[in-house]
Amino acid sequence: MAEKIALKKKVLSENDRLAAEIRRQLKERGIVALNFVSSPGSGKTTLLERTLSALRDEIRIGLIAGDVQTENDANRLLRAGGDMVRPLVTGGACHLDAKMIMRVLPEIDLDHIHFLFIENVGNLVCPSSYDLGEDMKVVLISTTEGDDKPLKYPAMFRRASVMVVNKIDLLGTSDFSLERVRKNALGINPELKIFELSCRTGEGLESWYDWLRELARQRRAV
Amino acid sequence: MAEKIALKKKVLSENDRLAAEIRRQLKERGIVALNFVSSPGSGKTTLLERTLSALRDEIRIGLIAGDVQTENDANRLLRAGGDMVRPLVTGGACHLDAKMIMRVLPEIDLDHIHFLFIENVGNLVCPSSYDLGEDMKVVLISTTEGDDKPLKYPAMFRRASVMVVNKIDLLGTSDFSLERVRKNALGINPELKIFELSCRTGEGLESWYDWLRELARQRRAV
Repeated sequence: MAEKIALKKKVLSENDRLAAEIRRQLKERGIVALNFVSSPGSGKTTLLERTLSALRDEIRIGLIAGDVQTENDANRLLRAGGDMVRPLVTGGACHLDAKMIMRVLPEIDLDHIHFLFIENVGNLVCPSSYDLGEDMKVVLISTTEGDDKPLKYPAMFRRASVMVVNKIDLLGTSDFSLERVRKNALGINPELKIFELSCRTGEGLESWYDWLRELARQRRAV
Repeated sequence: MAEKIALKKKVLSENDRLAAEIRRQLKERGIVALNFVSSPGSGKTTLLERTLSALRDEIRIGLIAGDVQTENDANRLLRAGGDMVRPLVTGGACHLDAKMIMRVLPEIDLDHIHFLFIENVGNLVCPSSYDLGEDMKVVLISTTEGDDKPLKYPAMFRRASVMVVNKIDLLGTSDFSLERVRKNALGINPELKIFELSCRTGEGLESWYDWLRELARQRRAV
């Protein structure tokens, strides 16, 4: 067990070294990087599809679409207008790590993007431990999952800067309460910025887009 | 990397040894063990609550409720009538392993149960690699998650014997198709037994209960 822990530390510090190098390359070019994490089926791909297509004339977005298996998500995102979408199939691994990002990064033209979006593997546990060189983690949770998720997966909500509550059009079909999920999430991480939206009806998406626009503006001004 | 893989193999074979020992102890007493796996929020705890409370006068069920953090699920299940419910908090680990089960098992009176239910951590990736000594894995998927999940997490659907499609009362609120999820799942694993139900409305629960009754009958007859 001690051997296992020591090895895990070694793997993580190697990951941190690579993540720092990715961060340096992105910062140098003023690129904002967001790492999207959630359970399977919370709607990461749909949120990214809508965002790519809404902002395509304003902000150039590079996107790495991680999946355990299949390039389905990457194909959906390519159709949504991302010509800088690259699939990253982990072939079984339960999270993305910095080494995988390093391998795909040269396929993206960093001199021509404002944002790098990374769609992590659908998993609320393991991806929380791996820095990918991002500016922020964005954690999605959908109203069909239960408002106790921040309490049950605290590491993820502690390390995220933004929480997106998706599928608010389905409020009322379960006992999920927006008030409770806010309270549970802010109890873990009082700094969390929260968006509540429905990728299906479009409700709430404008404030999400506005926040991304503002982020892009700030980064360019630096 | 080779070092990491070698160590992983060692950890897994130690796990297999312990799982075989658990399986022996359960078989000896004619106990049927089911390992419930799913994404966070698919409704494992709710299905288990309903099942404990529906079958409490017919079948005695021991239950190990795994969670990364909090004993909320275990408390819900205790209220549902399980006096043989034990919490198993992994404290960060993304899956249960046989060693953890071994630790909790002495707290359950094996001479007085017919079934052992194990509620795994909500995670569609990592728990697929760890045998817990169960007879079968039962994988839950909810209609709000997307019907492509068997393709994206094939290892889990390949290793499961049963797939429960939950939240069928929400069909029509997304483009989830029962036909597609069946096709995707059976493409990965043609032997999969499938139940379609709603823990909220109760639709479909009777065939699930009947199947459990039949399983208990068969085991007693052996």
